[in-house]
Amino acid sequence: MKAAAKAHTNIALIKYWGKRDEPLILPMNSSLSLTLDGFYTATSVDFRNDLSTDHFYLNEQFVTGAEKNRVTAFLDRIRAAAGKPDAFAEIHSTNHVPTAAGFASSASGFAALAAAAAKAIGLSADEQQLSILTRQGSGSACRSVYGGFVEWEKGTLSDGSDSYAVPVASANYWDIRVAAVILSSAEKKILSREGMRRTVDTSAYYPAWVDSIPNDLAAIKEGIAAKDIEKVGEIAEANCLRMHATTLAANPPFSYWQSTTVSIMQTVQDLRATGVPAFFTIDAGPNVKVLYTPEHEEKVRNMLQNITGVHDVKVSKPGEGVSYI
Amino acid sequence: MKAAAKAHTNIALIKYWGKRDEPLILPMNSSLSLTLDGFYTATSVDFRNDLSTDHFYLNEQFVTGAEKNRVTAFLDRIRAAAGKPDAFAEIHSTNHVPTAAGFASSASGFAALAAAAAKAIGLSADEQQLSILTRQGSGSACRSVYGGFVEWEKGTLSDGSDSYAVPVASANYWDIRVAAVILSSAEKKILSREGMRRTVDTSAYYPAWVDSIPNDLAAIKEGIAAKDIEKVGEIAEANCLRMHATTLAANPPFSYWQSTTVSIMQTVQDLRATGVPAFFTIDAGPNVKVLYTPEHEEKVRNMLQNITGVHDVKVSKPGEGVSYI
Repeated sequence: MKAAAKAHTNIALIKYWGKRDEPLILPMNSSLSLTLDGFYTATSVDFRNDLSTDHFYLNEQFVTGAEKNRVTAFLDRIRAAAGKPDAFAEIHSTNHVPTAAGFASSASGFAALAAAAAKAIGLSADEQQLSILTRQGSGSACRSVYGGFVEWEKGTLSDGSDSYAVPVASANYWDIRVAAVILSSAEKKILSREGMRRTVDTSAYYPAWVDSIPNDLAAIKEGIAAKDIEKVGEIAEANCLRMHATTLAANPPFSYWQSTTVSIMQTVQDLRATGVPAFFTIDAGPNVKVLYTPEHEEKVRNMLQNITGVHDVKVSKPGEGVSYI
Repeated sequence: MKAAAKAHTNIALIKYWGKRDEPLILPMNSSLSLTLDGFYTATSVDFRNDLSTDHFYLNEQFVTGAEKNRVTAFLDRIRAAAGKPDAFAEIHSTNHVPTAAGFASSASGFAALAAAAAKAIGLSADEQQLSILTRQGSGSACRSVYGGFVEWEKGTLSDGSDSYAVPVASANYWDIRVAAVILSSAEKKILSREGMRRTVDTSAYYPAWVDSIPNDLAAIKEGIAAKDIEKVGEIAEANCLRMHATTLAANPPFSYWQSTTVSIMQTVQDLRATGVPAFFTIDAGPNVKVLYTPEHEEKVRNMLQNITGVHDVKVSKPGEGVSYI
């Protein structure tokens, strides 16, 4: 009744932005991501007869409150699927992801938790079923089941059975880099869940966002197939800006950007003006991720580290999907 | 054959963003502005028989090239309207507006030029006709014909005869303030004309921008009628953000913001959190204007001046329309 799994986080190049069903976490639009080797969560789940509730430890700390409740609610789905409603677990999770501020530690966290819990409780689930399970813990986590480039097909069914990730290209397919640029003071005022909801409900630009996704997806998959960094980067950057623009047209409007976010975007564009194919993308927070090819490693890293307000730069390569440990 | 006029610049609270006709400068959407007393242009026009071309002096400097050609092209319209195609003028214009970077010196410039030139050449034009003339020099300039709050009705006719400004509330109607926050390094990379064109032609969000204007206009006029700074400010701020969001969805995307622009926006929102009704608006450039009521003068000014990257803060009151001097 014990199992452990490891999962990497992922960065969306075509953003997941908006739910059509909140409880099942079904998205309004399909998305596409790259799993990153640098950031991961390792989680063990031990279903024990002597427990009458779940015990959750994150980075060796016993966790209570909303964070624990989210884990228990997710395990309730696993218990229900396995037909074992009274099986409670001790969970130990170690996050190798800077928490909060746009780094989806929930992506690696729920992918690892789903894999370990399903195995521990004896629920047989292939990768597609695991992706569907994981999605119900955290939407973008369903993409972390696979390594490399991954598409999350939004699906159309109301039960969510056709809303899961599919692999596009494996981790060793293309040697590119993602620099995670972490701000010194990166407090995230509006959570992505709340930001999505307000945008879907009120943004004058949200319908056009949804309509714009199929073209982006088709084009970026062409770019990935051709290993064309310019094409992939330009589409990812434009998609990111189009996502953030939806928040500016919400009611009331809001933005995840800080002044340093804009400095980083401009530095990346300045880099491009010198012939370096570097492109940015930004999730629902102020931090920035920069996509580039490995031969420009030194120049990109130096430029990013020297920006006022940047705390750290962490470089990742494409990472593998979920594995059991 | 000589006349002189003075006109103030204006700040749009509902933005003019996009042309439906470039030569006639006909807008896609109606807009609403406040004429500002702090920034103006004084212009004299002298039609002289001894000239075979226009001579244009800006701030005592003889001007040639594109800037002069724009003035001459505008005077060609005045000459045509007056039936005097061979009348050439010596023009002296003095700008009391910080040039470039989102300060519409063209607004006060063309309003003053139109008024002085029309009078000097003997063309009788009421304010509505003057607004139509002025519009053909610079779109937003047509609002500077009037003082206080002014609406530019976009019109629907292809000859532009129903596209002109109308007064909403006079300069002495409501004692409010606009602080122009000027950045230390405010280079404007994409001119508003080019930015508009690219946005109209390519932005996925542009149609929704146009559709959003009638509601904004109706609501802000209610706010002005009630002298409700919260309502006027919130609508202006949301409209500004919605305008700038259209540029992020253009192809290729672009932005007028710099890091300091974001710092100023956040400072204004922080001010609001302390109970000060201050609201920002931003034209096609990185500088920011802040709207507030006079009792908060000291606090607003201090907060703005202390932002890193801010060069200067210039406070204006509502200003008068065109006058002859």
